[in-house]
Amino acid sequence: MSVTAAAGFVASGVRAGIKASGNPDLALVVNDGSRDVMVGVFTSNRFQAAPVLWSQQVVADQSGRVVVLNSGGANACTGAPGFADTHRTAEHVANSLSNLGRDIGAGEVAVCSTGLIGERLPMDSLLTGVDAAAAALAADGGSDAAVAIMTTDTVPKLAVRQGSGYTVGGMAKGAGMLAPGLATMLVVLTTDADVTGEVAESVLRAATARTFDRIDSDGCMSTNDTVLLLANGASGVMPEKAEFAAVVQEVCADLARGLIGDAEGASKDIVITVRNAASEADAVESARAISRSNLLKCALHGEDPNWGRVLSALGTTSAAFEPENVDVIINGVRICIGGGIGEPRDLVDMTGREIAIEVDLRAGVEQASIWTNDLTADYVNENSAYST
Amino acid sequence: MSVTAAAGFVASGVRAGIKASGNPDLALVVNDGSRDVMVGVFTSNRFQAAPVLWSQQVVADQSGRVVVLNSGGANACTGAPGFADTHRTAEHVANSLSNLGRDIGAGEVAVCSTGLIGERLPMDSLLTGVDAAAAALAADGGSDAAVAIMTTDTVPKLAVRQGSGYTVGGMAKGAGMLAPGLATMLVVLTTDADVTGEVAESVLRAATARTFDRIDSDGCMSTNDTVLLLANGASGVMPEKAEFAAVVQEVCADLARGLIGDAEGASKDIVITVRNAASEADAVESARAISRSNLLKCALHGEDPNWGRVLSALGTTSAAFEPENVDVIINGVRICIGGGIGEPRDLVDMTGREIAIEVDLRAGVEQASIWTNDLTADYVNENSAYST
Repeated sequence: MSVTAAAGFVASGVRAGIKASGNPDLALVVNDGSRDVMVGVFTSNRFQAAPVLWSQQVVADQSGRVVVLNSGGANACTGAPGFADTHRTAEHVANSLSNLGRDIGAGEVAVCSTGLIGERLPMDSLLTGVDAAAAALAADGGSDAAVAIMTTDTVPKLAVRQGSGYTVGGMAKGAGMLAPGLATMLVVLTTDADVTGEVAESVLRAATARTFDRIDSDGCMSTNDTVLLLANGASGVMPEKAEFAAVVQEVCADLARGLIGDAEGASKDIVITVRNAASEADAVESARAISRSNLLKCALHGEDPNWGRVLSALGTTSAAFEPENVDVIINGVRICIGGGIGEPRDLVDMTGREIAIEVDLRAGVEQASIWTNDLTADYVNENSAYST
Repeated sequence: MSVTAAAGFVASGVRAGIKASGNPDLALVVNDGSRDVMVGVFTSNRFQAAPVLWSQQVVADQSGRVVVLNSGGANACTGAPGFADTHRTAEHVANSLSNLGRDIGAGEVAVCSTGLIGERLPMDSLLTGVDAAAAALAADGGSDAAVAIMTTDTVPKLAVRQGSGYTVGGMAKGAGMLAPGLATMLVVLTTDADVTGEVAESVLRAATARTFDRIDSDGCMSTNDTVLLLANGASGVMPEKAEFAAVVQEVCADLARGLIGDAEGASKDIVITVRNAASEADAVESARAISRSNLLKCALHGEDPNWGRVLSALGTTSAAFEPENVDVIINGVRICIGGGIGEPRDLVDMTGREIAIEVDLRAGVEQASIWTNDLTADYVNENSAYST
């Protein structure tokens, strides 16, 4: 399902031999519909990987038909040779698809890569894999594609929603380096709705701003983050924009939850909601600062409702609030009232996987949530050994 | 030694019973000289602990004679009752010292507290401890005082430097929640130099800006950070300001290194130096962003010279540089050249405790260093169990 849930899309995932493990590592997604809308949102990191530089050009006119994705190597910080590798990949995809009867140019092929930064890709394996993936394209290939883009993910991330007469589906990968603007992730969304590039782009930007931009696993921002939305009009339905936006945001939210729920080494899923802020920006800044406190994330791992660490993180922000007006509620217990001691710590049950932290700023009417996870010894172990 | 290295200061450290462990937890430092200069630098956290609020008033006129410090409780986020506890502590110190023949008012007594946020202090134990500490004051009490302010510190932190005819000494505590503006720490410096409050304050601010503000253990900022400098003129020497500033900065640098070297759970001492920046502020912003990358800190723990994680952190800053001009040198090996692949990873020896990361921005002539440490499972374990 996932990227092939919508009509008129085919996909595949194969073992190209890029990963030393021999696991699937190359995916293709192809739009066979009558429209070729493709729009994207990319990392704001100033070190942008070669595939990001390439794909930004591909979607500059809000169109494109194909996405090729590889795991096993990020092709980031690889200079001109790395960019040439990306270009060659797109050319090869276009040739391979044309040989199989599809008329595709390299300029219609977005490229996404994920894995270790600073290493060249094994191009012979990759290009051979492209041929295999092209041959394997199928209307039920979405699951294979989702598996082939996994790195340290423990499960593939898929999501589907039905709109009024059309479908939006997607896949995502990402399990570490998850942070705002965007998380380290690759996401491909497809829809058979009949929408223009302008609508697709504005809907995608709005959806990512409130979903992928609001998960923060470890505060680290990747060089490769890419979210693509392809639309082919195969359903024949031109949705009302607000309804389409809501459906796309739901799919993005599903995938974002999947990413944070599978974050490296995490044992707790944490949602931090800041209420009654003077502005949404204040709420986001506050929730983000709290979500990045290593000390708090360790405490939550230890099931310790350490509200002092919530306040000490909040106190570093420029959000509008008076310290003596702030309440903190952890799993429903108002443990900090008016910036001071509230209900007893031992009322807080933190034995479950879900932890909800609410901060009431009493400074306005806006709110926002950030999803994060705890900091664990498993995270350290996984990230100490990743590239060696 | 430490705070009693300079002439005319006495100190003590006792077991007041504030800590459940029964370890020493209350310290006094008293200036018996003819001048009573005391200046301070405090946390920029908006949640300021009661003792910070109090001590800022004490040093508002750049004078004061006594510092009382307790570990075992931060007295932060404790509201008006907590402030009353601090006030009562200062009054009790003044009375206790007056009973022993020193003419001290509560307004001359700075108070510092460290430990868990959001709990009231056990005042009966604390005040009884004050009496014991007053009785124990001695010209060789500096070491006892340094031990009594330890929390998760594994060693007391002391430093002494000789100026031209005068002495500057100090003690510090802090092992977690170390971050800029300031680290979580308490520092008391004493000198027998004959300096004005104005000179002492400007010298202290300049020294902290380049020492304590440039260590960053875990990006977390405390509610209680305090650095105090007391000067009594007992040496009879009025130093030249630049020389005095250099000596104070050396003592601060010694203590800052001691703090980061004893950071919770650390196995590597890391210095990140950003060179050839367009401005010192750019160099600091860049080095700080790199020092806060959990992914990099895990990699360094695993002795993995993962320069991609250096660049991905640098890429989130607004410092002036062109990505294709940036070099990264790890322990002397130029592993990233021009934003791309440099010398081979396996040339880098990371088996020692010290790791030096240098980033060359090729954008100017300024530089700055931040000292940090690796992220380890021990850090997680220590901070998961701290308050429970």
